[in-house]
Amino acid sequence: MKLSARNVLKGKIVAITKGATTTHVKIEIVDGMLVTSSITNEACEDLRLEIGQEAAAIIKASDVIIGVE
Amino acid sequence: MKLSARNVLKGKIVAITKGATTTHVKIEIVDGMLVTSSITNEACEDLRLEIGQEAAAIIKASDVIIGVE
Amino acid sequence: MKLSARNVLKGKIVAITKGATTTHVKIEIVDGMLVTSSITNEACEDLRLEIGQEAAAIIKASDVIIGVE
Amino acid sequence: MKLSARNVLKGKIVAITKGATTTHVKIEIVDGMLVTSSITNEACEDLRLEIGQEAAAIIKASDVIIGVE
Amino acid sequence: MKLSARNVLKGKIVAITKGATTTHVKIEIVDGMLVTSSITNEACEDLRLEIGQEAAAIIKASDVIIGVE
Amino acid sequence: MKLSARNVLKGKIVAITKGATTTHVKIEIVDGMLVTSSITNEACEDLRLEIGQEAAAIIKASDVIIGVE
Repeated sequence: MKLSARNVLKGKIVAITKGATTTHVKIEIVDGMLVTSSITNEACEDLRLEIGQEAAAIIKASDVIIGVE
Repeated sequence: MKLSARNVLKGKIVAITKGATTTHVKIEIVDGMLVTSSITNEACEDLRLEIGQEAAAIIKASDVIIGVE
Repeated sequence: MKLSARNVLKGKIVAITKGATTTHVKIEIVDGMLVTSSITNEACEDLRLEIGQEAAAIIKASDVIIGVE
Repeated sequence: MKLSARNVLKGKIVAITKGATTTHVKIEIVDGMLVTSSITNEACEDLRLEIGQEAAAIIKASDVIIGVE
Repeated sequence: MKLSARNVLKGKIVAITKGATTTHVKIEIVDGMLVTSSITNEACEDLRLEIGQEAAAIIKASDVIIGVE
Repeated sequence: MKLSARNVLKGKIVAITKGATTTHVKIEIVDGMLVTSSITNEACEDLRLEIGQEAAAIIKASDVIIGVE
């Protein structure tokens, strides 16, 4: 499936932290650069996410804030 | 200012496309890896964004979808 | 690609309205029930969206507000 | 109250899963088509959500990603 | 309609800027404190928004980032 | 850091509710007007948020829905 979302950052899952209903997943997209995602436990189980697995962080352009010093 | 947003990806602005009310900004966070952001023209002018400028793409963890093959 | 996003509503594109940088797309997911999406013109061109095409409206659970009378 | 949000999908609540601070609610908008929402426990209690209750899934157009095969 | 969204900030519309497909609306929620919203032109026309009108800025808790000095 | 996000509402933290992975934080931006935010526990610990602390609620314009009676 091709997505309208402009940002599809590919990497490897390096951490999964499960809560009562919400799971946090960290993807390393380049050496030392992590992207953290907060998803439902249901999604985590459905995709059978595991540490070491290849995965993409998908982000809509309208969800990206710009910051400058 | 320190932010609760888990993802602050630093890079350089490589493209700015201005529309009637909305501007699209592309930040290169590593060689060849771009993040696209959609912001208001007002924000673009307020921050005086320019190509070549250092900038960060800031993304809340709850806005990151995970995709796997 | 499998997505963590809990909501993937399949239908047909029934309207595309292009602006200066932002395009609005309407997908009919069941008879008379439309979902409106606001995406970048770039995404619209990249996916070559056309009226009549099958498409899915993808929505993260954290972006769904509940309303009751 | 009338809302600017373009998507107000009406249906019936078919599942409520409460976590420590976050609740997941599933609304059936047409036979077999569910929309999942992730809200605060506080909101769930405030609206006194119950299985079987009529409810709407409200989604801003800017939060809808388009996917095509 | 009661909403799960935790933030409903009431005020008066003080500015409306229409673009090709996107409109920016500013609501003054207390003296000198504005909230800016970006909505579709369609929503703006549908709600017949006008300067001086009472309106609420509605924001889901998961869309609020915290910043500290 | 200057942000493209149009809404930076300053106030004081008046409540922090920690869950298994998600924390809810309430900021009083003017007398009796609260903004609720849902963030990761990690962010809460990272920023060392405490009741009474000055903090800002940061919201992108594209995440603000307008409601009118």
